[in-house]
Amino acid sequence: MVSVAAVPGDAAGELLAPIDFYFDFSSPYGYLASELIDAVGARHGRRVVWHAVLLGAAFRATGGQPPSQQPIKGDYFRTDFQRSARYHDIPLRMPAGFPVSSLHATRSFAWLGQQDEALARRFAHAVFRAYFTAERPIDQLDTVLDIARSLGIDRAALAEALTTQSLKDATRLANDRALARGVFGSPFFIVDGESFWGVDRLPQLERWLSEGGF
Amino acid sequence: MVSVAAVPGDAAGELLAPIDFYFDFSSPYGYLASELIDAVGARHGRRVVWHAVLLGAAFRATGGQPPSQQPIKGDYFRTDFQRSARYHDIPLRMPAGFPVSSLHATRSFAWLGQQDEALARRFAHAVFRAYFTAERPIDQLDTVLDIARSLGIDRAALAEALTTQSLKDATRLANDRALARGVFGSPFFIVDGESFWGVDRLPQLERWLSEGGF
Repeated sequence: MVSVAAVPGDAAGELLAPIDFYFDFSSPYGYLASELIDAVGARHGRRVVWHAVLLGAAFRATGGQPPSQQPIKGDYFRTDFQRSARYHDIPLRMPAGFPVSSLHATRSFAWLGQQDEALARRFAHAVFRAYFTAERPIDQLDTVLDIARSLGIDRAALAEALTTQSLKDATRLANDRALARGVFGSPFFIVDGESFWGVDRLPQLERWLSEGGF
Repeated sequence: MVSVAAVPGDAAGELLAPIDFYFDFSSPYGYLASELIDAVGARHGRRVVWHAVLLGAAFRATGGQPPSQQPIKGDYFRTDFQRSARYHDIPLRMPAGFPVSSLHATRSFAWLGQQDEALARRFAHAVFRAYFTAERPIDQLDTVLDIARSLGIDRAALAEALTTQSLKDATRLANDRALARGVFGSPFFIVDGESFWGVDRLPQLERWLSEGGF
């Protein structure tokens, strides 16, 4: 499970493995992490590799379910989503339709990532913010295509790609790989073979990066 | 749900509601919180009221199960227990027998609390440390009685009390009250009507106490 591949490219992260950042577009804690993780990587000279995952498969494998859907816990989590956002000073307006399918957004992210990782990340930010600050229905294909277009992405080309079996297969493969690495929630971070689950584990992740483990 | 009762007794906490701290003796995160929460209370002039609960009932109500028992998640949690302990600089040696029933310890805590809250708290610390640093089988009646005796508690009187229906009823009532307040995990904190679940929510709890909410 230890990822020791050197990061090609810019000098800063040359010899350090990246932080793998896994998220589901329908996850509020994943959204919060998406607004925080790049600064964590920058503080510690680590590249961050973003991975969109579909947690439905993980929930089936672990017997779990989204926290907000569970009896009693649901009310707590709805409070905690908002409080955690205020704690981190990140805007959050929980969508009335929650959770929703993140399938189109995840496949779109995978397609963009095959071409331009930085663009895929800008798209991910845009999807998260559209859903969690403006209540846009990111489960709808048109919403996803419109968000892409707003970033200068060819709307028709993306729409075409989303119909292909190869993109469906690539997305499923990426998801299977995440599950095989033990990813079962969002956000989930893996660095130097160490796993961290939850935006509330960022302090431990940061200490880990500072001290090379603890 | 808002608890606005003034704290009787010492001047420091006169006008501030206490922090209600709920824990299960079989919970590693509850143990970590038990080593941290009194300092949190002291820093903010709040009394901390300790409540031992039996989470089995809560897990039945929420459809949940102990995190370490869940597929895939179990391995993660075993790592996270130890790492969280190191993060907080608290000794932890996960018992081979885990989790175990905390019934005897919880009833004993309730009985002691009826007489001497400070003594009950010392007992709680002793039980947690016996289980999570010395692997003593706290599900066994003899272990619980021995721990009590080591604190100067009358072993025979406690053994006698543990056979009474009134103590069983009192423990069940306390547990039902906790469930009615929405307690579904360990540790769980409620202060000024606001709920916080998990040792990883102590930073939010502290900010809440510092700023009177946020």
